[in-house]
Amino acid sequence: MAILYHHPFCPHSRFIRLSIAEMGIEADLIEEKVWERREAFLALNPAGTTPVLVEEQIASVPGSRIIAEWLDETRGLALNDRRLLPENPSARVEVRRLVAWFTEKFGAEVSEPLVHEKIYKRFMPGDVGGGPPDPAVFRAAKSNIRYHLKYIGYLIRQRKWLAGEALSYADLAAAAHLSCVDYLGDVPWDEDAVARDWYARVKSRPSFRTLFEDRVLGMAPSPVYADLDF
Amino acid sequence: MAILYHHPFCPHSRFIRLSIAEMGIEADLIEEKVWERREAFLALNPAGTTPVLVEEQIASVPGSRIIAEWLDETRGLALNDRRLLPENPSARVEVRRLVAWFTEKFGAEVSEPLVHEKIYKRFMPGDVGGGPPDPAVFRAAKSNIRYHLKYIGYLIRQRKWLAGEALSYADLAAAAHLSCVDYLGDVPWDEDAVARDWYARVKSRPSFRTLFEDRVLGMAPSPVYADLDF
Repeated sequence: MAILYHHPFCPHSRFIRLSIAEMGIEADLIEEKVWERREAFLALNPAGTTPVLVEEQIASVPGSRIIAEWLDETRGLALNDRRLLPENPSARVEVRRLVAWFTEKFGAEVSEPLVHEKIYKRFMPGDVGGGPPDPAVFRAAKSNIRYHLKYIGYLIRQRKWLAGEALSYADLAAAAHLSCVDYLGDVPWDEDAVARDWYARVKSRPSFRTLFEDRVLGMAPSPVYADLDF
Repeated sequence: MAILYHHPFCPHSRFIRLSIAEMGIEADLIEEKVWERREAFLALNPAGTTPVLVEEQIASVPGSRIIAEWLDETRGLALNDRRLLPENPSARVEVRRLVAWFTEKFGAEVSEPLVHEKIYKRFMPGDVGGGPPDPAVFRAAKSNIRYHLKYIGYLIRQRKWLAGEALSYADLAAAAHLSCVDYLGDVPWDEDAVARDWYARVKSRPSFRTLFEDRVLGMAPSPVYADLDF
């Protein structure tokens, strides 16, 4: 069976958890605290980041975008119309553009700083950067999220799903990153009703269910987190 | 003919310039000053970053990693043993891992801050962040580069090229990022002789020649920049 090294609130890991659930791939989830810089984990991914996928055929596939390509190359054709990276090269560019948008841009501007400040720092020892959250950091992230929601709304006004007429990695990446912020109650859903409706659609998929069970010790999820009619 | 929107000292653009030269693809180069946030350019890439490739078959391919995938999907098979992304899925993971390493990690820790502080800021108006370089930023980058050179040396002690026995995107991405830092004279080549020898091999390829002609107005390149026997 596949093994996925992840953190429950790492948005990149959540993107892959959703993707493998959509593909019907079972994996053992092993929680990795990246700040511990475990030697055996660094051997799997010298960059020291989650997620990392291990399978019988390969010792290590590190990083969400690389795992997504690997899954498509090893399973894509068999998925037929449920494939998450379309067959047409131009359509693949649009999916990859939006995956990059949410993993790099939304990640750097919103989800990574919020998760780092509000979740990771609670569990990190002081000597590697743990401690109370920095309000300046999360104020910026909470302001940045508004234009990203508007961008999702803009795209969904033209298309059924983020990258076109079919569900793709783009939707799963975006929803994975948003779901971490949603746990914290920091998504201003009133900002764009079309974006909210799209998220409700993704959130109601069976692949999303396992995310609802994740909990941060001592920090309850926002009331809307697992609510399908938020 | 293809059009590549780039900046001469954008390391991501250089990665694609090297790649298309290796593939024998001709392209018109159009210099883009991303800080101007030109509307016509933002329409090609809403993220506002270089490089962007435009071809007859597609309106826009934004971002070096996405362009590299596009080029492989549209030309890869015809290149046979000169293909820059190998055919085997496991080997593709290793190439993509190292491309991600150099574009994301080396980019964020070394080449982007150095190019931004020492080159871009000379030409950016003050109201969008132009001005004198911040020594704290480039001191950190000049310290970070050392472990990256050691990592290149470590890999090349085991393999002919960075990702295996054949030249790949990994070599071109790494060399593209290093070449920007080399212009500034900030690569401590004495740090690792094996890394230096690998760079000399990549640098002597015909694809590298056009990079040697790039100049920053009012800033001469380091003496070793275009020297094949540095």
